[in-house]
Amino acid sequence: MKVLAILYKGGKAAKEEPRLLGTVENELGIRQFLESQGHEYIVSDSKDGPDSVFQKHIVDAEILITTPFHPGYLTAELFEKAKKLKVCVTAGVGSDHIDLNAAVKHGAQVLEVTGSNVVSVAEHVVLSILLLVKNFIPAHEMIERGDWQVSDVARNAFDLEGKVVGTIGAGRIGYRVLQRLVPFDCKELLYYDYAPLPEAAAKALNARRVEDLKDFVSQCDVITVNCPLHEGTKGLINADLLKHFKKGAWLVNTARGAICDKDAVAEALKSGQLRGYAGDVWNVQPAPRDHVWRTAKNPLGGGNGMVPHYSGTTLDAQERYANGTKSIIENYFAGKPQEPANIIIGVGKYETKAYGQR
Amino acid sequence: MKVLAILYKGGKAAKEEPRLLGTVENELGIRQFLESQGHEYIVSDSKDGPDSVFQKHIVDAEILITTPFHPGYLTAELFEKAKKLKVCVTAGVGSDHIDLNAAVKHGAQVLEVTGSNVVSVAEHVVLSILLLVKNFIPAHEMIERGDWQVSDVARNAFDLEGKVVGTIGAGRIGYRVLQRLVPFDCKELLYYDYAPLPEAAAKALNARRVEDLKDFVSQCDVITVNCPLHEGTKGLINADLLKHFKKGAWLVNTARGAICDKDAVAEALKSGQLRGYAGDVWNVQPAPRDHVWRTAKNPLGGGNGMVPHYSGTTLDAQERYANGTKSIIENYFAGKPQEPANIIIGVGKYETKAYGQR
Repeated sequence: MKVLAILYKGGKAAKEEPRLLGTVENELGIRQFLESQGHEYIVSDSKDGPDSVFQKHIVDAEILITTPFHPGYLTAELFEKAKKLKVCVTAGVGSDHIDLNAAVKHGAQVLEVTGSNVVSVAEHVVLSILLLVKNFIPAHEMIERGDWQVSDVARNAFDLEGKVVGTIGAGRIGYRVLQRLVPFDCKELLYYDYAPLPEAAAKALNARRVEDLKDFVSQCDVITVNCPLHEGTKGLINADLLKHFKKGAWLVNTARGAICDKDAVAEALKSGQLRGYAGDVWNVQPAPRDHVWRTAKNPLGGGNGMVPHYSGTTLDAQERYANGTKSIIENYFAGKPQEPANIIIGVGKYETKAYGQR
Repeated sequence: MKVLAILYKGGKAAKEEPRLLGTVENELGIRQFLESQGHEYIVSDSKDGPDSVFQKHIVDAEILITTPFHPGYLTAELFEKAKKLKVCVTAGVGSDHIDLNAAVKHGAQVLEVTGSNVVSVAEHVVLSILLLVKNFIPAHEMIERGDWQVSDVARNAFDLEGKVVGTIGAGRIGYRVLQRLVPFDCKELLYYDYAPLPEAAAKALNARRVEDLKDFVSQCDVITVNCPLHEGTKGLINADLLKHFKKGAWLVNTARGAICDKDAVAEALKSGQLRGYAGDVWNVQPAPRDHVWRTAKNPLGGGNGMVPHYSGTTLDAQERYANGTKSIIENYFAGKPQEPANIIIGVGKYETKAYGQR
């Protein structure tokens, strides 16, 4: 059978660093495994347009492997052409680049390597919160350019201690973010989610659920987005909701770019309604050169903590999602059941509520 | 009496942000308090050389207020001229810019606002560890310059989970750093200190003491320096000790610049022996424009997380150390005893072991 993988290009870095498993060059380390069993393995970063490797080979691939970092967008239209497709594996977490309703319709399973990078992302969230609250980037840039004006950076630097931090989504990542914040003596840890946390978990975090989103955001000094992208969360953080934020709040989004309205966030940062915005996810990836999130700043010239989508693709995470991808494929070959936590779409039906199915 | 304060200049920032209390402009908010009692209050950032305000007024000041961020260096020689000096207050934590032996000899007390910014600094340490381990700065710079090459940053990005983190010094700051790292599931938390932590504290952190420094550094993936600067710690991290570090370790120093040998650290970063170096303290402050720590990078062009000395002067910290300074002065005026934890040098003797007195 044909296995098609759309990965990001590693170039020189991938040649020098074999642990960059999630790259076109290092092919998740599964070529030998697949070819020794007689399968064909196509790997490319060419993903957009009708002449792309993705669209050329999707027509007869049985297994598709993609990543959130360089997403191959599998639309309903492409599903129509993907006559042999049985399994979509997301090497990582977050399968919004796959049209999930179309997958249900076509009987293709969608699987993630659920545990592979939730810790990596949660760590990046804590990093992003701290660097915004402490006004780190302007301070570092000051050193790089040869200056030293403590007051110019201290004027917008705070402690996380005593602040109210809230997560939109308290699932595998959001929960781990709150867990890591417990010893920081925040004033309060809040969460907004469609379901309450199990009692023991909420108690361990001393976290309080707020059921109304506007009410929730109005109480937070720091808001972090940790929910999947689906029809119900697309554009959730828009101009209207941003008005309900505390003036000068910090916003961190490592979930999916399209959960935030690009221009509304940039405007809020520019006006000072947001003191900072950080994260690694973009509405289109790779982000165009002129994407407003690359350069948007607060009125003091700071508050931008953006990076390319890499928080879930640390070398530690790559090892885990490469192994997890292999194990999903092994299960499929052997007709064994998949790990329940990895199943987003089973044959013909949703197996998770995370993508807005209630 | 004359009260002399050497603070950092705030300029426009201090005029716009009254919470920048630790600046020359905002004078720790104590001018009215002092003048209403008939005292003279001299405030300046002019601190170096015989014509500086510092050296001019030290001859008849009874109270000297300084900060670690823009240190007025009170040498043994200057102490000879400071005939009326009774109290040196450090608005913040760390009094190594005062010649403590000379203070003992001259019967001048040295007091710190001990609790004022230990949390601020501990938070900055966790931030610095995360940003080095996750290779944040090259990723952010990539976005700023309009690029998108995930592999070029992911190749040197890791998780903190599973790493060994050790602190040199497990006092008020080092302890709080370890506390904040507990939920990160590090492989192990280690500490090197002249005294073991109280049993309950060590147990709460699950932290293990290593008594030999070379042995200690050889076990750590991340090392953070959280001890005071004194004769026994100056140049502690030098070329010889760096050879005992794990290849590619990360080093964070928010304690004092001179604890690390400037050139040895820069060399270790350049060679890749260190994967990263971050912190906010410098052997001379303000750091000269050509200070090697401004520009030193690892072989992949990253690994520099330096900022000016501001981690302990967040707006939250400034409020605390301004209040604490006032309260120390009030105690002195009233002849009341000082908070024991704030006393570094009592009249004629060391009251702490933190500065190398055993």
